[in-house]
Amino acid sequence: MSAVFILSDFGLSDTYVGQMRSVLYCGTPPGTALIDLTHDVGRGDVLEGAFHLFAAAPHLPDGSVVLAVVDPGVGTDRRAVVVRSGGLLIVGPDNGIFGLLPADEAWKLPAPGGSCSTTFHGRDLFAPAAARLASDPGWTGSLQVLETDSLAGLGIDAALEEEGVLRVTVAHVDVFGNVILWLSTDDTACSGTRGVILADGRRLPLTRTHTYSGGEGLLLLEGSLGLMEIAVDGGSAGDILGVSTGGKVRLVNDP
Amino acid sequence: MSAVFILSDFGLSDTYVGQMRSVLYCGTPPGTALIDLTHDVGRGDVLEGAFHLFAAAPHLPDGSVVLAVVDPGVGTDRRAVVVRSGGLLIVGPDNGIFGLLPADEAWKLPAPGGSCSTTFHGRDLFAPAAARLASDPGWTGSLQVLETDSLAGLGIDAALEEEGVLRVTVAHVDVFGNVILWLSTDDTACSGTRGVILADGRRLPLTRTHTYSGGEGLLLLEGSLGLMEIAVDGGSAGDILGVSTGGKVRLVNDP
Amino acid sequence: MSAVFILSDFGLSDTYVGQMRSVLYCGTPPGTALIDLTHDVGRGDVLEGAFHLFAAAPHLPDGSVVLAVVDPGVGTDRRAVVVRSGGLLIVGPDNGIFGLLPADEAWKLPAPGGSCSTTFHGRDLFAPAAARLASDPGWTGSLQVLETDSLAGLGIDAALEEEGVLRVTVAHVDVFGNVILWLSTDDTACSGTRGVILADGRRLPLTRTHTYSGGEGLLLLEGSLGLMEIAVDGGSAGDILGVSTGGKVRLVNDP
Repeated sequence: MSAVFILSDFGLSDTYVGQMRSVLYCGTPPGTALIDLTHDVGRGDVLEGAFHLFAAAPHLPDGSVVLAVVDPGVGTDRRAVVVRSGGLLIVGPDNGIFGLLPADEAWKLPAPGGSCSTTFHGRDLFAPAAARLASDPGWTGSLQVLETDSLAGLGIDAALEEEGVLRVTVAHVDVFGNVILWLSTDDTACSGTRGVILADGRRLPLTRTHTYSGGEGLLLLEGSLGLMEIAVDGGSAGDILGVSTGGKVRLVNDP
Repeated sequence: MSAVFILSDFGLSDTYVGQMRSVLYCGTPPGTALIDLTHDVGRGDVLEGAFHLFAAAPHLPDGSVVLAVVDPGVGTDRRAVVVRSGGLLIVGPDNGIFGLLPADEAWKLPAPGGSCSTTFHGRDLFAPAAARLASDPGWTGSLQVLETDSLAGLGIDAALEEEGVLRVTVAHVDVFGNVILWLSTDDTACSGTRGVILADGRRLPLTRTHTYSGGEGLLLLEGSLGLMEIAVDGGSAGDILGVSTGGKVRLVNDP
Repeated sequence: MSAVFILSDFGLSDTYVGQMRSVLYCGTPPGTALIDLTHDVGRGDVLEGAFHLFAAAPHLPDGSVVLAVVDPGVGTDRRAVVVRSGGLLIVGPDNGIFGLLPADEAWKLPAPGGSCSTTFHGRDLFAPAAARLASDPGWTGSLQVLETDSLAGLGIDAALEEEGVLRVTVAHVDVFGNVILWLSTDDTACSGTRGVILADGRRLPLTRTHTYSGGEGLLLLEGSLGLMEIAVDGGSAGDILGVSTGGKVRLVNDP
């Protein structure tokens, strides 16, 4: 039996998520776990949705179904798809929301029937499909196969190194104000250093926790999502740096 | 086995909802699904709670119990009731929160016992009753029957047509900024038109999706809740129109 | 089979709670209930987390596991512990978050293994421990026993009476604006009175509900958490009094 993990940009102040949960509850075997990842993706912000999927996916059990609905083009001719990424089956619109995960297989969902709304495919098209996959993962065998390289992509700017200066993109600023960078903790760019120096000269020590007491505030950390983070103990690094998603940070190694 | 759907104005920043969930968990058979509809109803806003019940009810499975607690008169002599609306049993205060749903039967809950608080009937009176109903729907057979027309009503202004001008009330502005109108998609008022014209002359084309590109911005849609909506692609129609719940919109057909 | 109740300061706008839920789901027997208490504790605010645990604990069933993660010192040498408080097993950092509950027994969690992050022990250390306790409460038998009086304490200022003036500390201002005081409803300080008089002369009648109509607005109530509350019908007592958590209210009995 699969769990269904749910991500959307619907927020929790309307009953849209509740309606999707009801559809999932009705369509899955008794006892199927319905687990929210987040519903606070910025309205229509496909890139933020993709980031959150990227962050959460490594921590979801194989065999799970993920319902991912950030769908500004709902009702248009963008495709409705299922993507297999490792052990996960992810259902949602083909608009790039899967774009930061490897796609191993992909299928097109059948066209919605007559009772499907044109403005709420999360409830009327994607949730029923997710429920069906959770009940019967083999359902994909009857769906139209898609070439995975035909799926909508998503451009993120990888870290760029030029003459020793690393230019990295902000992936996300989380609720604690941690500035999460598109710079993998496996990247060697910061290895062997004691930290980094920002363009304005501020030195950020490379630490293991948020409570490093030796510095002036800002810290560089190996974050829990596999990405490097800039943080500050008890404050918001995002506010201090004045950056948000998509912003750029320039830094050099502090050897 | 029934699911219990929960709606309140308690928000999620205190543990009030958590305490209700615990009572429901303790009082229901193992594996009973507890599903949040929303807890972000405006504090004490019975009409908003009623709207959300109206919106969600058609999407809840028959046999479900709904716990609906927006209860500004908690502890006073307003009645505590169970209402059957179609296949749903809804528990809450008799203050109008059920007022937008058809009531097929109604019962009065027994007076709370000594350990019941006077300020948190959601936890101490309604949740135990919902749990009992989920365990034993036949419990209503031992409750005092109420005349359904004795239930507290709720006034909403239906659409009013006068000399070709339709005056409609805003039911809700959702998190996307969609302006949901008290105008049923089954209503013939807008049928056969290509859209509507607002009092200030703005023309709203009647479209099927939010991404219509031919207009100046505002659109008229058949919304997913069975009500007409005014929307704008990528923005908030509520902000553009400057309306909120209970506000009025005047429009004429664009033939 | 135990339920797991979850409390944190992670908010719901990232997937951190979703990742913890996934770990709990994977580590517990099928059908284990995962129930959120709240995730909106102020970031790093251990005292607020402790208050919410104190408020919710009496309403959780014996045999439950509570995962409580407000952990500003994550990754430092603060201990990771399990505390038994009555029928509950509570897992979290030893930083005072359990400080408002009686501790009957305590154990130290084993040091995290190599795959544990240094910044997200909620996911990598505490959630796995909570899942294990929910599966096998006897696991504590193999953990290192701690003296309960070695647990980090938490100072709250109890009510202080001096020459008839009661000086009480604000425990919490809830989402309704109710000002919850560190003054037990069992306390005799207000018994036998018809209310209290604030330092500025305002008289607060002692009432049973929020809808008392005889006063000027502010009311004194026996709150649902076992603490006295100052409230106002349809408004925020916190705003009117201009107080927040930790603030002081001075009052005398109105005999």
